[in-house]
Amino acid sequence: MTYFLTTSQDDFETRFAALLGAKREDSPDVDDTVAGIIADVRARGDAAVIELTAKFDRLDLTPGTLRFSEAEIDALIADVPPEEKRALERAAERIRAYHVRQMPEDERWTDPDGATLGWRWGAVSAAGLYVPGGLASYPSSVLMNAIPAKVAGVERLAVVVPTPDGQANPLVLMAARLAGVDEVYRIGGAQAIAALAYGTDSIPPVDKITGPGNAYVAAAKRRVFGKVGIDMIAGPSEILVIADGDNDPDWIALDLLSQAEHDESAQSILITTDPEFGRAVVAAVDKRLETLERREIAGKSWRDFGAVIEVASLDEAAALSNRIAPEHLELCVADPDALADKCIHAGALFLGAWTPEAIGDYVGGPNHVLPTARSARFSSGLSVLDFLKRSTIAKMSPGALAAIGPAAETLAKSESLEAHGLSVRARLDKLNAT
Amino acid sequence: MTYFLTTSQDDFETRFAALLGAKREDSPDVDDTVAGIIADVRARGDAAVIELTAKFDRLDLTPGTLRFSEAEIDALIADVPPEEKRALERAAERIRAYHVRQMPEDERWTDPDGATLGWRWGAVSAAGLYVPGGLASYPSSVLMNAIPAKVAGVERLAVVVPTPDGQANPLVLMAARLAGVDEVYRIGGAQAIAALAYGTDSIPPVDKITGPGNAYVAAAKRRVFGKVGIDMIAGPSEILVIADGDNDPDWIALDLLSQAEHDESAQSILITTDPEFGRAVVAAVDKRLETLERREIAGKSWRDFGAVIEVASLDEAAALSNRIAPEHLELCVADPDALADKCIHAGALFLGAWTPEAIGDYVGGPNHVLPTARSARFSSGLSVLDFLKRSTIAKMSPGALAAIGPAAETLAKSESLEAHGLSVRARLDKLNAT
Repeated sequence: MTYFLTTSQDDFETRFAALLGAKREDSPDVDDTVAGIIADVRARGDAAVIELTAKFDRLDLTPGTLRFSEAEIDALIADVPPEEKRALERAAERIRAYHVRQMPEDERWTDPDGATLGWRWGAVSAAGLYVPGGLASYPSSVLMNAIPAKVAGVERLAVVVPTPDGQANPLVLMAARLAGVDEVYRIGGAQAIAALAYGTDSIPPVDKITGPGNAYVAAAKRRVFGKVGIDMIAGPSEILVIADGDNDPDWIALDLLSQAEHDESAQSILITTDPEFGRAVVAAVDKRLETLERREIAGKSWRDFGAVIEVASLDEAAALSNRIAPEHLELCVADPDALADKCIHAGALFLGAWTPEAIGDYVGGPNHVLPTARSARFSSGLSVLDFLKRSTIAKMSPGALAAIGPAAETLAKSESLEAHGLSVRARLDKLNAT
Repeated sequence: MTYFLTTSQDDFETRFAALLGAKREDSPDVDDTVAGIIADVRARGDAAVIELTAKFDRLDLTPGTLRFSEAEIDALIADVPPEEKRALERAAERIRAYHVRQMPEDERWTDPDGATLGWRWGAVSAAGLYVPGGLASYPSSVLMNAIPAKVAGVERLAVVVPTPDGQANPLVLMAARLAGVDEVYRIGGAQAIAALAYGTDSIPPVDKITGPGNAYVAAAKRRVFGKVGIDMIAGPSEILVIADGDNDPDWIALDLLSQAEHDESAQSILITTDPEFGRAVVAAVDKRLETLERREIAGKSWRDFGAVIEVASLDEAAALSNRIAPEHLELCVADPDALADKCIHAGALFLGAWTPEAIGDYVGGPNHVLPTARSARFSSGLSVLDFLKRSTIAKMSPGALAAIGPAAETLAKSESLEAHGLSVRARLDKLNAT
């Protein structure tokens, strides 16, 4: 049953804690299986990948057909309807325009001691992007992962996407083409992650792997972390809508359902200052659930994890929002900017009733890969920074070393690291001798 | 035996691969023990932490003495010699001045479609910093972890530092005080990580945990990752020095030894264009190893993992450096800036012979918490960004929704996410009706 809470209830804290603590995902323990697959791919390379693809995806490949040729991609994307192509292009343009602004600056300065300091950003040389097959094979996610990588300057961007029974998704290939992806391999699962991390004869290794996947993919990413970089391990999607009574209940119901339809484990929460409005939204959700194509999934998510919370004020709403730290936070109130200032933990903010969350999934511009499961308290959505790394820079003049070297020597001694101190002392002695 | 390679050798690739692949760290498998400790702290809180501290640190605590009082800290730091205090202050000032420049800007703009977009940075609310006890209890690391957190704006910064047999390190407490740390607890090990991640009656939970530690601490950090954010899991320290023949062999020897003295698993590599200079550095290392206080540790590191590589050109040196992706890269050549441009993977750059790596460990300003084990290919040293998270912002005007909404609707349909499309359509219909 959908949760109904009001902060005026005596047992509100208990009920809110139950809502926060609801375990929405029960990942099967596939770690041993995944460890075996990774070891096999490391040992036997292409042969292992080909065997595992035959087994799991019922697809016979050779080293020569692991990768889609450009001609195959051309042929598949020729079937994409023009309207969908134009929509993807529009999305790609807007996502690129947003992410270009994220590129950080290199810095270098000389401080009063004469030390030249700074940092320099550089792109990861090669990145791999996992794209799920089947139902959750979203072209929008290809854009959201690939465009930041290319904006960052990643030279070699490889996509892996399983094609069970050989069925490829033309829109995924179109998105990869629009985003400037360099290589697309028709493989998936833990074997694809292993191939990207360790390389095979046909698939050169990458330095960073991003993108969503099932429990096997998530376990494989955890295992190769360290050998390569990975993005976050995303959990089921979430939305929190804070709305006053001056909204169309059907709009808000649809916003809640657009998370719920993703996944039975998704969570949609409404916080409202207006109890009557809350009831109207619940009625609107029920009505939409009568006809929605994905009503089975959305209905189960709404019943199991959905919630409506009545609050006495927007300040109270903000305080609860900060405890939830939602992935998506939609503020449908008279002054969304003022409320946003009080909501300090959220992956993405959607300000005002004219900004349905779904805009952000496709064409808004900001990334839709966002922190879930309260991790917005300490992490951020995907960005160009995920495909960049920073080298710090230090360059001492003899004068700078003379000014700050003695302090380093003192601290080295206090930490019993003699060679550290001597490496400074040898230079200072030379300076003093000249 | 120290590795001696020259790129002109026929078997150079094999030998270089052996150097790159040398397994320097054999972490004991403590994962089950750590899982038990974490479960115990989650179940019994303070009582478990107190029992485990009695067992591992031979120290009897109560809930009231888990935390150092301000008076206790005052008394302990009163014993710090003035010269060390001044050196720590100097270091803290310089580290703060560097990290203040890393604070990123919030951005907000309205694009030609009328969409207001942007992002907003905010600090993690509470962070925990692990500080090892015993030999590797470095006050400099307290500054390097705590100052970026405070510059970022972390409100509550808690330090955990084990005090075996009750022995506290006054310099660590002084560093914590200088850096603005809010709470210091005399606990360590996996139990301290568990207490920070899950909280106890006496220790409120944090959102992010950083700082180095032994195998138990590293395993505990991996386990609580997701519940809280963590920094990287650091491996043994490394330095690569690229030097031409125009250097003092003793300076370079000391720079190599200042990594080697950290740890038997540390690695120091010299790449030089001048074979004679290479031999002179080896002789200088041997001579310094006769008297160095930590000659046992440094000697073992140098013999097991040290390397001298002769190259034909600085371009060749840069290419090898990029394959090594060193934590610290010191460029002792005539034009270090030009060479730095070619060395694209490195945690920290030290330009010119007047910039010994040890300067960066203490007073240079850049952070000394840096990516090891080739992870500079895809990750960066600690910075204020590690204590910040970003919320993206989207705010549509009705006109903006009219302009970009239809593309979102098309893509939602193509991904079979009907409610996504309807949430846009319901608003567009309202616009068209008015």
